[in-house]
Amino acid sequence: MRVPVPLAEAWRLVNHAPVTLVSASHDGADNVMAAAWVMLMDYDPPKLAAVLASDTYTAALAVRAGEVVVQVPPRALVAAVDGVGTTSGREVDKWARFGLGRMREAGVGAPLVEGCVAWIAARLAADQPLAAQADLYVLEGFAAWADDRAYDGARLRDDVPAELRALHHASGGRYVVCGDVLAVRSPRG
Amino acid sequence: MRVPVPLAEAWRLVNHAPVTLVSASHDGADNVMAAAWVMLMDYDPPKLAAVLASDTYTAALAVRAGEVVVQVPPRALVAAVDGVGTTSGREVDKWARFGLGRMREAGVGAPLVEGCVAWIAARLAADQPLAAQADLYVLEGFAAWADDRAYDGARLRDDVPAELRALHHASGGRYVVCGDVLAVRSPRG
Repeated sequence: MRVPVPLAEAWRLVNHAPVTLVSASHDGADNVMAAAWVMLMDYDPPKLAAVLASDTYTAALAVRAGEVVVQVPPRALVAAVDGVGTTSGREVDKWARFGLGRMREAGVGAPLVEGCVAWIAARLAADQPLAAQADLYVLEGFAAWADDRAYDGARLRDDVPAELRALHHASGGRYVVCGDVLAVRSPRG
Repeated sequence: MRVPVPLAEAWRLVNHAPVTLVSASHDGADNVMAAAWVMLMDYDPPKLAAVLASDTYTAALAVRAGEVVVQVPPRALVAAVDGVGTTSGREVDKWARFGLGRMREAGVGAPLVEGCVAWIAARLAADQPLAAQADLYVLEGFAAWADDRAYDGARLRDDVPAELRALHHASGGRYVVCGDVLAVRSPRG
């Protein structure tokens, strides 16, 4: 079940740096892309740095709307992740082509992608000093949710079911599925 | 065995966004820290964005030297990763405390950490527009190496031995070990 996560804890949802899907909506058009070059840059409220290539339709919508949802797709969606990462929403309806559903949340402009395990709604920061030369955007999270089968609150579970495990993109359409969890410090440390 | 990787391919070494160790050296002092907030931001030559907290000794050395090595520690080093990530080189000799060896390469100011599976030597970019407010540094890779048991050239192998698999930091000292590799496109795509 998808449950809200306190914003102060939301950074934990993506600290393992999984491949994400970034969705955006502007003027009635929704699109979604895969983004592996996304990382946290602050905790509370959570900030993310994301490389959104300027020639993508999603980046164009995101810049116009000033808002995105960054979400974590699980193993079950790996084919869709690769698909939305290698096609353009200018040419195909990615939602239909890859069978991705959309959810709407009040106060969130971009759609949430169904079947993901974590979602962070974020606004593009007013100041974007690395956008023009490097397509790197600073995103400020303002709401978050997680699937409680994959997370206990905002903490990744030790025993995430196989189909709900997050992915990392090795390269060239090869994805590494999250494996075992090793607890070096106290689990609540 | 550690082998050089062509710079144009080096981005692949860290595209799965593993936890890294960042080492730096200045004026005869070496230090190393754990850094999970590191991502690629360009391919060739590889550029990385890395959050190096300004209160860390490693960040101070890195800024003074203008150079770091970003390396990928495997599962076998998980206790050392957590250790160097939760102590300060101003207070302890992390190399001795956590049993980490150092290797030197000609033309590289920072030490390479032994036992890692990939290394990217990088210089801090001249322009750092997000350093002052966000501790986010742009790094320009200039040399790279990989352990050929974990990588085939720069490509992550499908069958990395258990102890050489990379890690992702969930949070609070809990690390996710890389699991199976799923090939969605052609393995050479």
